[in-house]
Amino acid sequence: MEKGATSTMAKTEYVIEPGQQMITVTRVFDAPRELVFKAFTHPKMVEQWFGPREYTTTVDKLDARPGGLWRFVQRDGKGNEFAFHGVHHDVVAPEYVVATFEFEGMPGHVLMQTVNLEPLGNKTRLVEHMVFQSVMDRDGMVASGMQRGSDDSMDRLAEVLAKA
Amino acid sequence: MEKGATSTMAKTEYVIEPGQQMITVTRVFDAPRELVFKAFTHPKMVEQWFGPREYTTTVDKLDARPGGLWRFVQRDGKGNEFAFHGVHHDVVAPEYVVATFEFEGMPGHVLMQTVNLEPLGNKTRLVEHMVFQSVMDRDGMVASGMQRGSDDSMDRLAEVLAKA
Repeated sequence: MEKGATSTMAKTEYVIEPGQQMITVTRVFDAPRELVFKAFTHPKMVEQWFGPREYTTTVDKLDARPGGLWRFVQRDGKGNEFAFHGVHHDVVAPEYVVATFEFEGMPGHVLMQTVNLEPLGNKTRLVEHMVFQSVMDRDGMVASGMQRGSDDSMDRLAEVLAKA
Repeated sequence: MEKGATSTMAKTEYVIEPGQQMITVTRVFDAPRELVFKAFTHPKMVEQWFGPREYTTTVDKLDARPGGLWRFVQRDGKGNEFAFHGVHHDVVAPEYVVATFEFEGMPGHVLMQTVNLEPLGNKTRLVEHMVFQSVMDRDGMVASGMQRGSDDSMDRLAEVLAKA
């Protein structure tokens, strides 16, 4: 950081209300909307930021159009794999993605994710809603440490955007 | 109805809790699960029961597999059209369908629909969850008269199954 500058590192904000079946994640990125959109829809960019820092992510599929499938595989250092997949309902560049999401370690529990990108001058506000099939599913996701993984993802995304 | 018989006409039940973003619809059909599943995944059957009685429904697309698109068009007697579309996340015969759903008259509002079919001897219990992107979206769907249309759909489906 330059001498005299104050930190402008944004933090990721969460709204997780008791008894609700939604998680809302908000983050402001110091990058134009087109670039943030690209980071969500181009495999080589997704692999650089998706997931906790100690995991590597491989994009198996990312077909960013209505009906297009996606599948990401995370690997830790011990040979464990964690895979996620879903399908895109809608993809409107550079604004909006709606997709389903299922962790293959817990099949049959599906959520729907909406990513909205709002322009703020040269910055972009990401507002992501995840809606779950039940409050229990939502609470299970929170208990699994989702927030720590998401914090890492959002911080890594900010770093990737700063270098892009 | 035969003389002396009591009505076994099932009713459709709804759970619509205040402040929640879900609707749960339950109905028991006097038909085996395979047939009910077929009624959800075969265009010619869907056209016989989907929507209010005074509308006709045409299945434009119904590709019942992960990533498969669906689109239904309803027409009233005055030439008005109402279309709906979405994408299948998962389709597991004869048990389970998860799909997104968007009314084209209100674009950008998407819900995720889960249809579970549970065998009850020769009958089948349908449990359908719809989860919305917000409580406001859910309340808007309820205010639009969704329940009357759904009652018609479920009654018509029972009639189609009885004839199949």
